[in-house]
Amino acid sequence: MSGGRARPDEAGLIARFFRPLATSPGAAELLDDAATVPHAFGKELVVTTDAIVAGVHFFADDPADAVARKALRVNLSDLAAKGARPFGYLLTLALPGRWDEDWLEGFAEGLAADQEEFGVSLLGGDTVLSPAGLFVSVTAFGHAGEGQVPRRTGAAPGQRLYVTGAIGDAALGLMLRRDDRLAAHWDLRRADREALLDRYLLPEPRVALAGVVGSYATAAMDVSDGLVGDAGKLADASRVGAVIDAARIPLSPAAARATRADPAALTTALTGGDDYEILLAIDPDDADAFEAEAAGAGVRVTDIGALVEESGVRIERQGEALSFGAGSYSHF
Amino acid sequence: MSGGRARPDEAGLIARFFRPLATSPGAAELLDDAATVPHAFGKELVVTTDAIVAGVHFFADDPADAVARKALRVNLSDLAAKGARPFGYLLTLALPGRWDEDWLEGFAEGLAADQEEFGVSLLGGDTVLSPAGLFVSVTAFGHAGEGQVPRRTGAAPGQRLYVTGAIGDAALGLMLRRDDRLAAHWDLRRADREALLDRYLLPEPRVALAGVVGSYATAAMDVSDGLVGDAGKLADASRVGAVIDAARIPLSPAAARATRADPAALTTALTGGDDYEILLAIDPDDADAFEAEAAGAGVRVTDIGALVEESGVRIERQGEALSFGAGSYSHF
Repeated sequence: MSGGRARPDEAGLIARFFRPLATSPGAAELLDDAATVPHAFGKELVVTTDAIVAGVHFFADDPADAVARKALRVNLSDLAAKGARPFGYLLTLALPGRWDEDWLEGFAEGLAADQEEFGVSLLGGDTVLSPAGLFVSVTAFGHAGEGQVPRRTGAAPGQRLYVTGAIGDAALGLMLRRDDRLAAHWDLRRADREALLDRYLLPEPRVALAGVVGSYATAAMDVSDGLVGDAGKLADASRVGAVIDAARIPLSPAAARATRADPAALTTALTGGDDYEILLAIDPDDADAFEAEAAGAGVRVTDIGALVEESGVRIERQGEALSFGAGSYSHF
Repeated sequence: MSGGRARPDEAGLIARFFRPLATSPGAAELLDDAATVPHAFGKELVVTTDAIVAGVHFFADDPADAVARKALRVNLSDLAAKGARPFGYLLTLALPGRWDEDWLEGFAEGLAADQEEFGVSLLGGDTVLSPAGLFVSVTAFGHAGEGQVPRRTGAAPGQRLYVTGAIGDAALGLMLRRDDRLAAHWDLRRADREALLDRYLLPEPRVALAGVVGSYATAAMDVSDGLVGDAGKLADASRVGAVIDAARIPLSPAAARATRADPAALTTALTGGDDYEILLAIDPDDADAFEAEAAGAGVRVTDIGALVEESGVRIERQGEALSFGAGSYSHF
């Protein structure tokens, strides 16, 4: 965000950078004060909002396209965890005084790329000057099957606990971003280091799994504040407990290397934030069908443990309980 | 926002201050990652988002309840201008490091008062720390009659231009807030001064007129950046022009006194921001019925001029054109 060329006013900025993204008819080409959202018969409309702030959720010098995509993706992750396929979003962009056109062009390019990847349209938004710093708030809209919005509250003892993808990469990536010497300490190869840094920069929301989540999950949420803590939130909301087998928790090759070299990295991996994977409870009778459909959707899912009567989350390794302190990363 | 007692964490903060506001079933008591929005048959779902930033849209030392209400009301104003009655909203609150519980209690009380007044429920949201400063973003949801969402684009030559309420109070109030000596310069009585300051602090969205707007307006928008400039936006979007009779523009007693004492105050009144009134085009054959229904809804409406073929906005006094420079206030 260095100074640069002359800058357009707000209307010019919207026309140039954001109008091309407003492909939905209800967005009225961003020329109006509000958008209309079409109803889809037999579907539930699901909405979520999450904001990211420079210095809290991302680094002020992150590439503009990555900031835009992260802001969108953390919301798409919430929708996917509720069984909803996204179709649109509202964007509120608070720009510090020193933005320039190059930055905004990169930001819009990031949105355009993700609109293409995830099939969504910009529906509207607001652009404000923020004396204080860069701030991006997104409200995302999706459709789920009627009665197929899993809450956090539906898990029951005897059900299996699954998680998508791999856990811990983003939290390790954030640590690396803050202290690059950890790459050596964790015995990482160059590709491992890049993979962890990338995963922090750009979450991979499990949009492709949304329909399967809606069909099978008895409870679900996205893992954004650390697996251990978020498993606790899901279990508490459902008034059950969880026993997780540490050996089953899916780790990427990079995270596996780091945790072998430094056992403390395992704590980071399991309690750090920014995974944006989906944690879900599945009835054991449905487990085979769920796994098959998830494979069909191209999303890896792993059975990491069981839901039990006794409250709390217990992480076990060969029958011994591991302890993880607070268990959660707080962005607040 | 002075320092104070010990502060709860994010979950505690939500439970204490915001859960009581989440009265809609779709909000899932704010215990989930997303909300569901009910479909209303025969209605259009209208959504809008507007953010307010300390130092740009309000003063950092404004009362917390007024900040909350302003953030909500500027969005309800957009919905009303699109013929939509509000039913819910998402709230993103970015809190600076030095927030305290008293401030947040006032903020929540302001929301509770407006939820009661306007019949809306908190549906969900996000709370983040903002190293930079206070920032409030609201996404509001409303229902309009099917096919009854007036855009900015439907006005035609020969139609009448109406505006609700009174114009200019908030812009004059903002000037007074910045320089209290203007109260004497404008010959204001104490009650006038209070009225203008109040109107800047707290907009009065014309929610009661939403249904009437939807039934009668061929084009509509809310006046947030000054009457002259916003009339130009509506006229441009409809590819028409407007001729406004300055003598007909509705002024409050306080604004009338100020503009009599200081002609420059009229420019402020007609080009300043923050009116949150509705500007709308009405077919002359519908004018009597529109005025009657508006009176029934308890909202004052005034015919201020005509839409014409020739582009641009002309403000006339006794046949002479007045000039207002830029015509718009920019919050950006």
